[in-house]
Amino acid sequence: MSTVAFIGLGNMGGPMALNLAKAGHSVTAFDLSDKALASVKAEGINTASSAQAAIEGVDAVISMLPAGQHVLSVYLDETKGILKSLPKGAMVLDCSTIDAESARELAAAGSELGIGVMDAPVSGGVAAAKAGTLSFMCGGEAEDFERARAILSGMGKNIFHAGDHGAGQVAKMCNNMLLAIHMIGTSEALQLGANNGLDPKVLSEIMLASSGRNWSLEVYNPYPGVQENSAASKGYQPGFMVDLMIKDLGLAMENSISSKSSVPLGSLARSLYTAHGLAGNGPKDFSSILNLFRTND
Amino acid sequence: MSTVAFIGLGNMGGPMALNLAKAGHSVTAFDLSDKALASVKAEGINTASSAQAAIEGVDAVISMLPAGQHVLSVYLDETKGILKSLPKGAMVLDCSTIDAESARELAAAGSELGIGVMDAPVSGGVAAAKAGTLSFMCGGEAEDFERARAILSGMGKNIFHAGDHGAGQVAKMCNNMLLAIHMIGTSEALQLGANNGLDPKVLSEIMLASSGRNWSLEVYNPYPGVQENSAASKGYQPGFMVDLMIKDLGLAMENSISSKSSVPLGSLARSLYTAHGLAGNGPKDFSSILNLFRTND
Amino acid sequence: MSTVAFIGLGNMGGPMALNLAKAGHSVTAFDLSDKALASVKAEGINTASSAQAAIEGVDAVISMLPAGQHVLSVYLDETKGILKSLPKGAMVLDCSTIDAESARELAAAGSELGIGVMDAPVSGGVAAAKAGTLSFMCGGEAEDFERARAILSGMGKNIFHAGDHGAGQVAKMCNNMLLAIHMIGTSEALQLGANNGLDPKVLSEIMLASSGRNWSLEVYNPYPGVQENSAASKGYQPGFMVDLMIKDLGLAMENSISSKSSVPLGSLARSLYTAHGLAGNGPKDFSSILNLFRTND
Amino acid sequence: MSTVAFIGLGNMGGPMALNLAKAGHSVTAFDLSDKALASVKAEGINTASSAQAAIEGVDAVISMLPAGQHVLSVYLDETKGILKSLPKGAMVLDCSTIDAESARELAAAGSELGIGVMDAPVSGGVAAAKAGTLSFMCGGEAEDFERARAILSGMGKNIFHAGDHGAGQVAKMCNNMLLAIHMIGTSEALQLGANNGLDPKVLSEIMLASSGRNWSLEVYNPYPGVQENSAASKGYQPGFMVDLMIKDLGLAMENSISSKSSVPLGSLARSLYTAHGLAGNGPKDFSSILNLFRTND
Repeated sequence: MSTVAFIGLGNMGGPMALNLAKAGHSVTAFDLSDKALASVKAEGINTASSAQAAIEGVDAVISMLPAGQHVLSVYLDETKGILKSLPKGAMVLDCSTIDAESARELAAAGSELGIGVMDAPVSGGVAAAKAGTLSFMCGGEAEDFERARAILSGMGKNIFHAGDHGAGQVAKMCNNMLLAIHMIGTSEALQLGANNGLDPKVLSEIMLASSGRNWSLEVYNPYPGVQENSAASKGYQPGFMVDLMIKDLGLAMENSISSKSSVPLGSLARSLYTAHGLAGNGPKDFSSILNLFRTND
Repeated sequence: MSTVAFIGLGNMGGPMALNLAKAGHSVTAFDLSDKALASVKAEGINTASSAQAAIEGVDAVISMLPAGQHVLSVYLDETKGILKSLPKGAMVLDCSTIDAESARELAAAGSELGIGVMDAPVSGGVAAAKAGTLSFMCGGEAEDFERARAILSGMGKNIFHAGDHGAGQVAKMCNNMLLAIHMIGTSEALQLGANNGLDPKVLSEIMLASSGRNWSLEVYNPYPGVQENSAASKGYQPGFMVDLMIKDLGLAMENSISSKSSVPLGSLARSLYTAHGLAGNGPKDFSSILNLFRTND
Repeated sequence: MSTVAFIGLGNMGGPMALNLAKAGHSVTAFDLSDKALASVKAEGINTASSAQAAIEGVDAVISMLPAGQHVLSVYLDETKGILKSLPKGAMVLDCSTIDAESARELAAAGSELGIGVMDAPVSGGVAAAKAGTLSFMCGGEAEDFERARAILSGMGKNIFHAGDHGAGQVAKMCNNMLLAIHMIGTSEALQLGANNGLDPKVLSEIMLASSGRNWSLEVYNPYPGVQENSAASKGYQPGFMVDLMIKDLGLAMENSISSKSSVPLGSLARSLYTAHGLAGNGPKDFSSILNLFRTND
Repeated sequence: MSTVAFIGLGNMGGPMALNLAKAGHSVTAFDLSDKALASVKAEGINTASSAQAAIEGVDAVISMLPAGQHVLSVYLDETKGILKSLPKGAMVLDCSTIDAESARELAAAGSELGIGVMDAPVSGGVAAAKAGTLSFMCGGEAEDFERARAILSGMGKNIFHAGDHGAGQVAKMCNNMLLAIHMIGTSEALQLGANNGLDPKVLSEIMLASSGRNWSLEVYNPYPGVQENSAASKGYQPGFMVDLMIKDLGLAMENSISSKSSVPLGSLARSLYTAHGLAGNGPKDFSSILNLFRTND
């Protein structure tokens, strides 16, 4: 079992820290928000008054932060950055979803200090964070991956080594771009069928047994009433918000520009989700994109 | 067991007729091509010299033809159309992939003559036609569906009742539009990952275990070398040709216009496949769309 | 001067018939709507009680109807179609915006009867119809074009011979697809600039003097307040309705399918306009597509 | 007349520096490439051995560099950056096409040192650079704009004040995104017409007189043979390269992400140009995008 600092206790980070402690690790948590800190403290987790205080004597730091700039600031800030203060032999596991370039910048800084850094973004959302069934997509050295796996397995079930530094972020970005595409495609297909008088439930069953099958259709059907517990059947309560999908698609598009990649459906997906968000749907579940293809009545 | 006329013995119709005979039905086949006729005759199937001759005394006619105009001509042509000559109580099962409107026109003509007509397009391609594992998507009356099922089960395993007349065509059109979308999306995602240095095989495994999962990624991976027996690993030998996907997407787009449906990814898929076909890739497997996103070298 | 029957007295056809009469031609008008008939009668135009009655002794028939099916019905209906009753030597000028295929079908029927038929769809909208400044895009024989020009010049200023039968419809369809594309593109560019703090009026001036220049930006600016008399500055009162643009883009998409053309921006334009219409904007001016890219507040 | 340092003597910068000298200004030029330096020296321009040497005693520095990183490095590099060494009262005119954020960063650094900075990217290409007919889109303070105009008018004819710092870059980015859109749209429309048998020259004339009119159609027709001196008629020799359009569209897409803008046609244009470049067309003129819509034969 390891001694771990956990930084960033939002909707995802909070339950992840709790599961890590339940798995037997010694966890000290920190967040800028007093409320978030109090919330995990109430569940019996040690908390610290600063990131610096949290990392004393740790084997590893796990971070779960909103964007690349926050990650770089926490670790690399000239005055308060914690990377240079980490105990010898400690490793960094950044589970935030950020751009691959920032992930590589952090890893390079770690490398100069002899600190192993892995990017390890997650898939599965708040439900999987609570259930301890997240997937982790890791980028970094093979030997660090083995150490990381022992810790991450306290919070998830599928732990992948995607490749070198940044590869975890790239894998997540590719996955979520593909998710956005088949969610929109599934919405178009179901609405096209409905416009022709088909029952979306019957059409869903047929396509699930055919070559149209995909995760959105199977697990996260965007048509209200087809699946009892779907976000669609509950007024598009998130779930995974449109605003977060826009963020992830933005990361994919930025990368497509720097990597000179052609991603016509991916970039159209970003513009459609952005238009949907501008129309006031940012806080809704991302499966609400179906409404872009329906009459307003 | 039934007495069945089978009209249209192409790459799909030929093996379907054979399986129907193997299942114990009495089959008489017809095709305008002597070569196609000779080919099934060599396998022991009865053949007829005309569609009219084929339908004598049948319980059902099955047709497998290239497009709506052929179907309407075979059944409704003023002089040679066979619909009005069918034995009392016989039913029509049109397995061709055509527009829903033509399917409804044929069904309406049948209804006037007291003949049950179902549209029953298939999913699965030549391999499934040979193996007898096709899926059928049927449109028409519930009672006709029960009769149809007894016959179609000789050629396939999943037999769906999609809804009223034309609904089988609509279901297939929606399914194939969604297939085109996630095939292109999967190609974009895998190439984006590869452009960032990821191994497409590793990335495929990660996305298969995550929310990016879809039929193209799982069964029909478009990246060469990821799956041993994929079309991609065999120089994009079809399989399912680009030209046929363009045809199916054309049916979906025409329907989207008449049904006033918004299908942005679906229509972009049609234009991308059409551009890919114009560049000389029409006869290749449809997973070759990946090459639209790669450097030529 | 000629004797002309004018069939179809809607928003466009009404003022066109009036201008034709003002130009000195002898006009007899017909419409299925009594109200439309009464309206032109009040302006001093002769009216007839049927299409058949209107064509007695004419040199030409002009039609201005909503869609291909109406045109084919008026001219080719087995019992009431007027084509076969036209006086010897009379010509047909169909100014409706319809699919090129129907235009060619009508022309072929005319050819069998020795009647010259031209498709002659218009550009310019209601304002130009009233002002007599329409553009006509004509398809048909060169000698018929000369006769047509003498008549059409009473209703418009630019009269083009686009090519053979159907070419007028093709030219209009290409033009309006391009119009839709640069209207949306102009909206995207102006809103992108505004989101970055630029004054849309200044940005419009800069782009008008640069390579971004186009008809939408120059004549029909979609940003409210940039041009005093634009639809955008008047709450997107039409002008040219979203619903009509959807119809025209539908014709272009259907043609792109049959002509195996790749039109990615054109088909995306159709889906965006369709989504915009589904959201309740069908009767607004087509420049209101800008709102798809703005926050709702 | 002013004393000016000119940094960056590429295809654009070289002829701009020459025109500036011809207009009577005292110009000292610098480039990292000896060859570029020698080339302007041969035309009688003073050259310097470093950027530092070039700026001695100047009233203004003009820079024409490939990307944001080069601009920031030349002006702000900790050891060699020239901004802090500029004479009191000198101003900076950066004519490079870069991201607006970098432009604002440079302006802010100038503001701290009391140095007026304007972003002033150009439109018009190499031909206009040589002819002294460039358009300048300037961002920065109104009073600096007046000083800038006096200098820029030696190299161009249209000099616009787009707004505050960065607004020049935003205006150029919006303009070029719109240009890409109507170039692709014009190509789609002309090819769609040609696929229907229309003469692209006739169709171009009709659309130029109608609502499809735009700069690409008028000045830069992408169909070979329509305009005698177009890039299209000369084997798509650039002109303005596909690779440069991809760069400009990348700037627009990055900005659309940070400004949360929906730009569906703009982002599809980027992916289409990128696919076109990947197929080996990067060095061709950007009007060659027409070939994406034609058969290869």
